[in-house]
Amino acid sequence: MPVLPPGYSIRRLQARDFEDVVETLKVLTVVGDVTRTQFEETLAYWKSVTLKVGAHSVPTYNPHVVVNAGGRVVATGTVLIERKIIRNCGLVGHVEDIAVAKDQQGKQLGLLLIQYLTDLAHETGCYKVILDCDEKNVGFYEKCGYRRCGVEMDHRL
Amino acid sequence: MPVLPPGYSIRRLQARDFEDVVETLKVLTVVGDVTRTQFEETLAYWKSVTLKVGAHSVPTYNPHVVVNAGGRVVATGTVLIERKIIRNCGLVGHVEDIAVAKDQQGKQLGLLLIQYLTDLAHETGCYKVILDCDEKNVGFYEKCGYRRCGVEMDHRL
Repeated sequence: MPVLPPGYSIRRLQARDFEDVVETLKVLTVVGDVTRTQFEETLAYWKSVTLKVGAHSVPTYNPHVVVNAGGRVVATGTVLIERKIIRNCGLVGHVEDIAVAKDQQGKQLGLLLIQYLTDLAHETGCYKVILDCDEKNVGFYEKCGYRRCGVEMDHRL
Repeated sequence: MPVLPPGYSIRRLQARDFEDVVETLKVLTVVGDVTRTQFEETLAYWKSVTLKVGAHSVPTYNPHVVVNAGGRVVATGTVLIERKIIRNCGLVGHVEDIAVAKDQQGKQLGLLLIQYLTDLAHETGCYKVILDCDEKNVGFYEKCGYRRCGVEMDHRL
């Protein structure tokens, strides 16, 4: 069983993570000129959206980070929880935007974060958790306990 | 350009669609014993979750139906709009749970509904709209303007 390196931990994304998270996400794709204000507004929006599960109110957006012993964000990822009608008004978790800082790869931080987010989604009551990935990453996600189940398609203007 | 048959229209899902929508969704997967109360609570939840785009508040969940000339729901589908940090705090549309009643297939209702939901997502400001499908439906979604871009993976307990 892989474990986090000494001093590393996983926690929710916080406003003070702005610079680290933007830097980490650049490994994944174009982030653009996101300002601190836009970042904080997005965090506040994410926090405001909740879901009723039984008697509890749980967050719909669950952005998390891996921080190293010095408190620096070294990986990030989210699980978004969707309420459906199918499957007895079931819940589905969508794992999104997994990124690991370039100098931190090879420590299994991505795998540990994905397992964390997947467990969180199941504990919230999701009957399944899904994610989309490149063909070249299928083997990695299989190591995280996922299996290939379909094709992702996109539409862009 | 395909068009809806005479008298058919596309509109938002409403509480009075309960029986028709549950029946239509059964084409897709297991719906389970969803009660009218659970359905109405889900609709109320969906309606309560909004997103700020510029000065406007727009719905996060956008469940729609195709109704025939007699007002019966004959197809259903949703686009869920996700707020991200990447791509300048961009928006992504997730097309979910497209189902067409068995006796209504061959009228291009699925294609028209998907185009409607895709346009709605782009008009809301989504930089891309994505969906997951079975390998056997790739050709159909290509006709809807989508292209293959990745692999869907799932995790179930």
